[in-house]
Amino acid sequence: MDINQASLQMHYDLNGKIEVISRKKIETREDLSLAYTPGVAEPCRVIARDYEQSFKLTRRSNLVAVITDGTAVLGLGDIGPAAGMPVMEGKCALFKEFADVDAFPLCIDSKDTDTIVQTIALISKSFGGINLEDIAAPRCFEIERRLKEMCDIPVFHDDQHGTAIVVAAALLNAIKVTGKEMGQLRIVINGAGAAGIAIGKHLINMGFGNVILCDINGIICEGDEGLNHGQEEISHISNRNKEHGTLADALENADVFIGVSRPGLVTKEMVASMNRGIVFPLANPTPEIMPDEALAGGAAVVGTGRSDFPNQINNVLVFPGVFKGALSVRAKEITESMKQRASYAIADMIPENELTPENIIPSPLNKAVADVVAKAVADVAVEEGIARI
Amino acid sequence: MDINQASLQMHYDLNGKIEVISRKKIETREDLSLAYTPGVAEPCRVIARDYEQSFKLTRRSNLVAVITDGTAVLGLGDIGPAAGMPVMEGKCALFKEFADVDAFPLCIDSKDTDTIVQTIALISKSFGGINLEDIAAPRCFEIERRLKEMCDIPVFHDDQHGTAIVVAAALLNAIKVTGKEMGQLRIVINGAGAAGIAIGKHLINMGFGNVILCDINGIICEGDEGLNHGQEEISHISNRNKEHGTLADALENADVFIGVSRPGLVTKEMVASMNRGIVFPLANPTPEIMPDEALAGGAAVVGTGRSDFPNQINNVLVFPGVFKGALSVRAKEITESMKQRASYAIADMIPENELTPENIIPSPLNKAVADVVAKAVADVAVEEGIARI
Repeated sequence: MDINQASLQMHYDLNGKIEVISRKKIETREDLSLAYTPGVAEPCRVIARDYEQSFKLTRRSNLVAVITDGTAVLGLGDIGPAAGMPVMEGKCALFKEFADVDAFPLCIDSKDTDTIVQTIALISKSFGGINLEDIAAPRCFEIERRLKEMCDIPVFHDDQHGTAIVVAAALLNAIKVTGKEMGQLRIVINGAGAAGIAIGKHLINMGFGNVILCDINGIICEGDEGLNHGQEEISHISNRNKEHGTLADALENADVFIGVSRPGLVTKEMVASMNRGIVFPLANPTPEIMPDEALAGGAAVVGTGRSDFPNQINNVLVFPGVFKGALSVRAKEITESMKQRASYAIADMIPENELTPENIIPSPLNKAVADVVAKAVADVAVEEGIARI
Repeated sequence: MDINQASLQMHYDLNGKIEVISRKKIETREDLSLAYTPGVAEPCRVIARDYEQSFKLTRRSNLVAVITDGTAVLGLGDIGPAAGMPVMEGKCALFKEFADVDAFPLCIDSKDTDTIVQTIALISKSFGGINLEDIAAPRCFEIERRLKEMCDIPVFHDDQHGTAIVVAAALLNAIKVTGKEMGQLRIVINGAGAAGIAIGKHLINMGFGNVILCDINGIICEGDEGLNHGQEEISHISNRNKEHGTLADALENADVFIGVSRPGLVTKEMVASMNRGIVFPLANPTPEIMPDEALAGGAAVVGTGRSDFPNQINNVLVFPGVFKGALSVRAKEITESMKQRASYAIADMIPENELTPENIIPSPLNKAVADVVAKAVADVAVEEGIARI
């Protein structure tokens, strides 16, 4: 049975990958009086007087909403809200399994930015954090930006920031392995959607040299026509030499390739034109170039999104810990500094003496990572004075 | 420690009465591939092709949303969305403990009918059913009516229908105990909000004699000025003799009093003016008349909402089973016939030879009731041809 059929069968057998249970056995009249009427009136009154107590007296203390509009689900595209739910439930299962954070999946039956923003804002008091998921670009940028302004809890678009954090972590170790210098890198990102732009911004914020984004039309340059808002924004801080050209042009003498695009766009010859390239073809399940071919082209380090090759770069290393940390100190937002510290924390999980070209990033199954990331995020919240617990 | 302080402490200790867990251990690469990428793409594709499969492949198969706007929480009134959550979580805990139905609490931060309706409709594809809770009248009527039209899953306002179903169950047994005839009853309901109107309609639909509603201005009569939509609607089918007057006037020679109003509104003298009265003063925690006083006034049967007197009339006997039954056959709605059958099913839980004035309704802690109610609801769905499984 192939993985698709096995997964489908497992989903039919499970009837859902998450479950909502009661944390309180209700067997006696006293149980009923404490958990429900009349006793439950008291925590209600306390929250009515002091809103902040809702983060202690209800499950929002440890609860993240995983929310999609179903428009950019995996590589499947716009498959609608109900069809996106297996992915959202999977994400929720990972939150619980990796960080003991409760997460609940919601799909919103609209593609209108205003409607999506309003709907999420209106239910946000039920949660401790909002994880946006699989929402198509460029809509996702505005949705996240507006919700961050409107909500008093962290809002985090994992496809952007989770991906950026884990890619930066892998890159931190890849430059150690190759002896490259962080500030001197020529980095080419292919794919200028949500993930590509977020990776670019994050790497630039961290001081990772010159970042060049490419999309289907080639290199993106300040002043180009037809850029969407997110692309236009990053065009001012990326591609510092205002280059034009194709992806192949961009890759000449590049130190790093990061692909968040489509299978097969990169050739062995392109890799050979790089400067001992660090090659992260992350398109899933089929990368922009297969690892063996990249290595044949002279790549120094290769990482993919796949579990069947070394260096699996997967944001399951990120989101459970990020929210666990933010929830633990009731941080209102996930800041730039938190994201950077999270990247360093993940990279540091591999001791220097164990670093090799085939071992730059912890296994996605390493459940120790979430606590390390959580601590990094919580520490920054305290340092920045935005911790409320 | 009194019950309020004990409940508050319990809430601080628990950090939430519900928890979202994973139904799938994720420890190996294969687990990750099955529950998440790449395997999860297959159930997504299947649902994209056949929407109905979402009720088998995701948790909506067994999942109810418990939704409030926080405007009519217990007797506390409009305390806002966050403060209403301890009640919603309590309800969710009861769903799981009593019927093994998953339930998830959501509070909506709006008092606007259109906004509330739209928000719930937009997230409804995440759930198998919608339980509306503690939404103020008359807004609750329109919200429920419109959602029933818009959603393809059952929508049930428990404060209305759950209460109506359990009151009717108690009344079915109370008339057996007293030898009264169903069609000949004079029934007075005090309180013409959501619960009172729903009880009235349900009793009329079941054939329970002449129902007279009273509110703060006394008896409600067809043609009265200032009735809201729900009151106007029931005025055409209740109070068949077009009486006017006070609550005291209404209670003269009445067979049944049902209070969903405020403490202390009924006197021993009023009960004495009834015809061997069946008295259900359900105001919580302090009833319209205390049981000992009602008995002193000559009441034949007394039932309250309280756990410290006989005959506790509590809708925890209803909602877990109603949704369990509806979900089990994927019924699109909760019909009138289902509600009636549920009332009979609950009443029938007390064998004829165990019926006494102090034993007309099962204990709220009797977990066998939910399955009996579920079977009744599912049977009707099949009979009415609206079962989809």
